[in-house]
Amino acid sequence: MSTKEFFKVSSLESVLKHLRAFPQIGSETIPVEESLGRILAEEIVSDIDIPDFNRSTVDGYAVQARSTFGASESSPAMFNVTGKIEMGEPARISVKAGEAVKIPTGGMLPDGADSVVMLEHAELLDDHTIEVYKSAFPLQHVIEIGEDLRKGECILSRGQPIRPQEMGVLAAIGKSDVPVFKKPIVAIISTGDEIVDIRNVPSLGQLRDVNAYTLSGQVKRVGGVPTYLGIGRDNFEELFRMCKQALNNADIVLVSGGSSVGARDFTMEAINALSRSEILVHGISISPGKPTIIARIGRKAFFGLPGHITSAMIVFMKTVQPLIERIGGLSEKYIGKKREVTAILSRNIASVQGRTDFVRVNLVHDEGRSVAQPLLGKSGLIRTMVKADGLIEIDINSEGLDKGSVVTVELF
Amino acid sequence: MSTKEFFKVSSLESVLKHLRAFPQIGSETIPVEESLGRILAEEIVSDIDIPDFNRSTVDGYAVQARSTFGASESSPAMFNVTGKIEMGEPARISVKAGEAVKIPTGGMLPDGADSVVMLEHAELLDDHTIEVYKSAFPLQHVIEIGEDLRKGECILSRGQPIRPQEMGVLAAIGKSDVPVFKKPIVAIISTGDEIVDIRNVPSLGQLRDVNAYTLSGQVKRVGGVPTYLGIGRDNFEELFRMCKQALNNADIVLVSGGSSVGARDFTMEAINALSRSEILVHGISISPGKPTIIARIGRKAFFGLPGHITSAMIVFMKTVQPLIERIGGLSEKYIGKKREVTAILSRNIASVQGRTDFVRVNLVHDEGRSVAQPLLGKSGLIRTMVKADGLIEIDINSEGLDKGSVVTVELF
Repeated sequence: MSTKEFFKVSSLESVLKHLRAFPQIGSETIPVEESLGRILAEEIVSDIDIPDFNRSTVDGYAVQARSTFGASESSPAMFNVTGKIEMGEPARISVKAGEAVKIPTGGMLPDGADSVVMLEHAELLDDHTIEVYKSAFPLQHVIEIGEDLRKGECILSRGQPIRPQEMGVLAAIGKSDVPVFKKPIVAIISTGDEIVDIRNVPSLGQLRDVNAYTLSGQVKRVGGVPTYLGIGRDNFEELFRMCKQALNNADIVLVSGGSSVGARDFTMEAINALSRSEILVHGISISPGKPTIIARIGRKAFFGLPGHITSAMIVFMKTVQPLIERIGGLSEKYIGKKREVTAILSRNIASVQGRTDFVRVNLVHDEGRSVAQPLLGKSGLIRTMVKADGLIEIDINSEGLDKGSVVTVELF
Repeated sequence: MSTKEFFKVSSLESVLKHLRAFPQIGSETIPVEESLGRILAEEIVSDIDIPDFNRSTVDGYAVQARSTFGASESSPAMFNVTGKIEMGEPARISVKAGEAVKIPTGGMLPDGADSVVMLEHAELLDDHTIEVYKSAFPLQHVIEIGEDLRKGECILSRGQPIRPQEMGVLAAIGKSDVPVFKKPIVAIISTGDEIVDIRNVPSLGQLRDVNAYTLSGQVKRVGGVPTYLGIGRDNFEELFRMCKQALNNADIVLVSGGSSVGARDFTMEAINALSRSEILVHGISISPGKPTIIARIGRKAFFGLPGHITSAMIVFMKTVQPLIERIGGLSEKYIGKKREVTAILSRNIASVQGRTDFVRVNLVHDEGRSVAQPLLGKSGLIRTMVKADGLIEIDINSEGLDKGSVVTVELF
């Protein structure tokens, strides 16, 4: 009895449910300089107020706002200039009614002052006297203590990706070493007796390994670390040996290629021979990408991806990618967040109910609108993936999309 | 006479025109494994047909299609099975009318055969005989020689960014070493007497350096290599010395901080003192970000960015980023391509004619629509940048946007 008969094809939804059960991997500490794109492993709380002094946002004069009330071009307010604030130093002076202290942008407001009059709104009459031509209000041109970040405040969350501005916030509070989730390690094994290393010249009947390179680019792009274990022959012993090796270090194992029935059987055999293994999915109701095998091996995930390049890439995007994100610590609300654009479909596309179709499209701009042009073609060709800008999805319950429909394009 | 009086504020459009004059930097060769996100420095031409043999896309029997014409369940066509194709080996057999050769997915079609009958459409009667239940057409289940990539064809262009699928194509033709543009080196200098290293505890009146970290994240994200030269005091000699040092290695120098008039004057002095320098821009009609200085120093670009963090980030996105992309070899059609979404504006925003406004927004999802909520706040606060998902632009000729307008949000 073939192994196939034990399994029925899973919907993408049920596949994702299986993948939610895999545990997050651990964390590590890295310098903030290297944290771009990493996922925070701890909530970050500020241990200081920022700023921790009232700070001027302009070049001008620190004053008591009420001393300026009613000032205008025709009736300026007169101030006694009693000193000057030096950048980066505590204000060692205090300001009383009718007094002004010169202050640079970023300078610390002296005691007594609650507002800054811009240079442009004052005129120096002599070394010690200015006239102010405009009424100032309290806290004008001032960043108050704790106005940016408040001591004790949770400023960043666990599971949040670090963008340039989050690097800035971490720097601001002196968090030079940042706790982040480790990057998931993804082992990539290519299989197929016809596949040769890209540095070799293929003989007749052979092809260079393509999938390992495409997949490793995809792994990197979503924050994983690809490790390429090379090309295995289509037999049980070699596949089993390579899978065991992969499981020593990797969090996820991708086996790609082996599209023939025999090769898929070897994959099933290898999984079954690994200890603590359980096959979760054997076939997904998506096109392309149906002949996909997903298993759990202990706490690790195993994917037998289709050999056809387009199928492998799409299955990666729809299953491996959210898994890498999840075990890599990304919060639920960020998972599967894609780069998307909306566009108008250029032609009808037929689809079959009962499976989710993913159609490659390229985008052209026509009279200010984005138009998505389907790229049809065999899923074994990489040409269409290179021409394509993205994917559109046709729902499992849909019989197709009409020309002119508004579609969401997930960009590659 | 102040240096200011020589200059008038430039529009963003004229700034970008200046930046188009900077030359591309050189190229280097890297392993295809490391090429994700890099920019191709040469056109890539395939030196082989892919595949270079007719290839089966299914498990089945290679036949002459015309021997199946008319076959059906009720009237199957009979075939003599004369052999078997081994994966990865040349087909050493030929197929005549009425003959079939067993072939795996990915196998090489033998001479004489022009089509493959799927296993599912054939029945083995004995070791040497099959019945076929369905008519096949020529080239059915076959990828022809050169159907994916044709020998001599230009498959990738100079100036194109490398995605996972481009890595795959490079692998397919054996291009294990890939010519790419070097990454632009961007020196970052922070200035300000009040700024301290993030590993230090600021005294009263001081703040940790934030901009250098935010900017270095931005540089990395757009494909540059940030090099942080540290914090300079607000004086001519130190700024001049650091700029000279930066120009030894960097393609672009960013000086950030020094928002006070005095600090800006030092920046102008330092630029003027550098040989072959020319100030291109002194003030941009954007908000935030007006007090920006841009200069050419020989073939290199110099930016005096505003000290306020939000201003510095926005000026980076609008000016430094397209420059990094351009000198880093990216083709015109990819430059400034942003991650964008459309959304509905949640409230009115006023703007001033004669300047381009950039407003930080966060995105919320409300009844299936994306709603952009403006985040107002002082440009010296990093808090709003952390809360923000992106930016919207208000045109230089607009007096503002109405609640309910459809806006394009450039994501951070």
